[in-house]
Amino acid sequence: MNVEDIAKKAKEVSYQLVDISTEVKNRVLLRAAELIEEKREVIEKENKKDLVAGEEKGLSKAMLDRLLLNEKRIKGMVQVLHDVAALNDPVGEVIKMWKRPNGLKIGKMRVPLGVVGIIYESRPNVTVEAASLCIKSSNAVILKGGSEAINSNRVLVSILKEAAASEGFPEEAIQFMDTTDRSAVKEMLQLDEYIDVVIPRGGEGLIRFVAENARMPVIKHYKGVCHVYVDEFADLEKAWKICFNAKVQRPGVCNAMETMLVHSAVAEAFLPKMIGMFKEAGVEIRGCDRTRAFAPDYVKPATEDDWYAEYLDLILAVRVVDSLDEAIDHINTYGSHHSDAIVTENYTNGMKFLNRVDSAAVYINASTRFTDGNVFGLGAEMGISTDKVHVRGPMGLEDLTIPKYIIFGDGQIRE
Amino acid sequence: MNVEDIAKKAKEVSYQLVDISTEVKNRVLLRAAELIEEKREVIEKENKKDLVAGEEKGLSKAMLDRLLLNEKRIKGMVQVLHDVAALNDPVGEVIKMWKRPNGLKIGKMRVPLGVVGIIYESRPNVTVEAASLCIKSSNAVILKGGSEAINSNRVLVSILKEAAASEGFPEEAIQFMDTTDRSAVKEMLQLDEYIDVVIPRGGEGLIRFVAENARMPVIKHYKGVCHVYVDEFADLEKAWKICFNAKVQRPGVCNAMETMLVHSAVAEAFLPKMIGMFKEAGVEIRGCDRTRAFAPDYVKPATEDDWYAEYLDLILAVRVVDSLDEAIDHINTYGSHHSDAIVTENYTNGMKFLNRVDSAAVYINASTRFTDGNVFGLGAEMGISTDKVHVRGPMGLEDLTIPKYIIFGDGQIRE
Repeated sequence: MNVEDIAKKAKEVSYQLVDISTEVKNRVLLRAAELIEEKREVIEKENKKDLVAGEEKGLSKAMLDRLLLNEKRIKGMVQVLHDVAALNDPVGEVIKMWKRPNGLKIGKMRVPLGVVGIIYESRPNVTVEAASLCIKSSNAVILKGGSEAINSNRVLVSILKEAAASEGFPEEAIQFMDTTDRSAVKEMLQLDEYIDVVIPRGGEGLIRFVAENARMPVIKHYKGVCHVYVDEFADLEKAWKICFNAKVQRPGVCNAMETMLVHSAVAEAFLPKMIGMFKEAGVEIRGCDRTRAFAPDYVKPATEDDWYAEYLDLILAVRVVDSLDEAIDHINTYGSHHSDAIVTENYTNGMKFLNRVDSAAVYINASTRFTDGNVFGLGAEMGISTDKVHVRGPMGLEDLTIPKYIIFGDGQIRE
Repeated sequence: MNVEDIAKKAKEVSYQLVDISTEVKNRVLLRAAELIEEKREVIEKENKKDLVAGEEKGLSKAMLDRLLLNEKRIKGMVQVLHDVAALNDPVGEVIKMWKRPNGLKIGKMRVPLGVVGIIYESRPNVTVEAASLCIKSSNAVILKGGSEAINSNRVLVSILKEAAASEGFPEEAIQFMDTTDRSAVKEMLQLDEYIDVVIPRGGEGLIRFVAENARMPVIKHYKGVCHVYVDEFADLEKAWKICFNAKVQRPGVCNAMETMLVHSAVAEAFLPKMIGMFKEAGVEIRGCDRTRAFAPDYVKPATEDDWYAEYLDLILAVRVVDSLDEAIDHINTYGSHHSDAIVTENYTNGMKFLNRVDSAAVYINASTRFTDGNVFGLGAEMGISTDKVHVRGPMGLEDLTIPKYIIFGDGQIRE
């Protein structure tokens, strides 16, 4: 396997994709869904090889779980293919068009990014999610999955290619780096001539490695240190419900709350009951001195590191603040600019929080747990961007395109 | 001067900018315009220092010309400040908003990028252009100009800061790297914690250096290898006019034509006159064999390198092709994805070219010379992006913002 050949082939074929009809692309996706259902046993057999090898290598239980393709997850992949087929095709959409004094008509039309490299770890379902979004948006894709999922990924890619070939979609638009050699990633990251953008999906180590080595643009998803701020004008019933949900419903994900901020004016009315609820759910609390005053035996002292921490666990940092400004400053300073919420009934405070908190998703009176492409209504997502260029937050199908300028003239020249 | 302190200060102050009213921002720009007019003599005196030093260092005539701030260029800077003040403020614009089944209202609202680093060479007017766009879009800016323009840049920055201070706009939002030490750039490119995006403006060497060393996103402007394709269904009168304009009107810029492609069916009718026009204008022509057949004494043979060349001069590569597909393949293979035009009266060929040519700006029946933020109607421009993420083509005020998600709830939690 030659990495440069793969990338070059992807680039060459990418120019043909822009003109392929939505109908053909949808047929590829639906055919892939059928094939996945038909070949469930083969997929499970290949996946089993990865699981056995993973156990032998001593992968953690969590890693093995991410690797697993059971009936539910296979159905999930089929569902994603149907969902993406149902989405509007963004390619060719003219989002604006205007006329200049010289008669030129200038428009912005969505086109594919070109060649998208996806570098991901363990979860083989990403193969199908990422490829389906690239197919639908007329991008060529280069898939580089984790070495631990090589057998699962190989069979899924072969199914996607079979579906493409059967519907007249160039199967070379789906490239797979069939290797467990990590140096292939480094090589891939040098090929900015052929690869237009790279999206790493995985742990912080992988993302930093990609960001530091890539010569092409990278769309990154770093950690989620999310906050809920309970304002002095909060409806406390809503606040208890939202904070509990944001921490406890699924603590291991990036949009779960990691730090709760409470205005001092409501601390006494709000915190004792809230701490009790968390205690009952087994949440470890690390608080500032004023928080600890309400439950000194239960709440551990927070250190400076706790304000930066992404626990991804049933642990929560809590701080009492004296003003909305202090809460906003805390979030902008210690947070990861992912998802943050205010609970308040005060219009002005809500709007100020919305404007001044510099995060990809800012909420008034709702749980941070909603930050997700599907939940937002974008359909499947390619990830959640914590970058500040191209896309912030959930990256949907549209974000795999970019407007180019189209200009209609009738002989205009520049004077 | 400590680079990290500068970047940190810019980041801190950037959070205050989002709430500053359009009115205040416009007053800063108009006050800066006044001050530049008032202080014209001081500016010219400081600029003179740079010119004298440049001459001593033996800078080329072209370099010295770019460095020069004469009356016309100073007026140009004043005009840019007025133009940017007149533009719509993109910050806070909600470009979409929808409702989810659970009642959540989700919108996308434009916010500043945060801290924008501009690394540029020789031309001191860039100081004012770049800073004015950043002020208007509520971004903090870090300006790192060329060492040869240090005195000119220093006085322009002091004027901008004075204007900011007089109108209550935080002057720390305009940061200037007051150094001629190149290692400061390398240091700056490591500070992804504080700088959200870097825009290099200058030659290819500078841009490659920035792209390879930056840890934050970079918006790049590489070369412009632009084409005009004269289709078999071209109106030849338009074709002669457009091709002549695209090559001759200002050959030293990125949107000038570097290669002309001609369909073989019209080569005989089109090329002899066209070659004559170019000859008269002093354009050196390097052609394929079929081009040379029309004027073997004048047209030099083109080599493979000529198809890749950005001459930025009165030199033109010419190739005869046998089909629209061949023209499109040539452009996508050898071009730089900047600006390309077709001359045709055939609807289907025009639309196919528009869809399949993978360039930032694709024209039907107009000169490529129009690719420019001002000419497109975007107002001033920050540069022309040849990247495929965030923005393609002229980068205007709006492209210095990015939508974030805003979510209005009334107590929603995730089940």
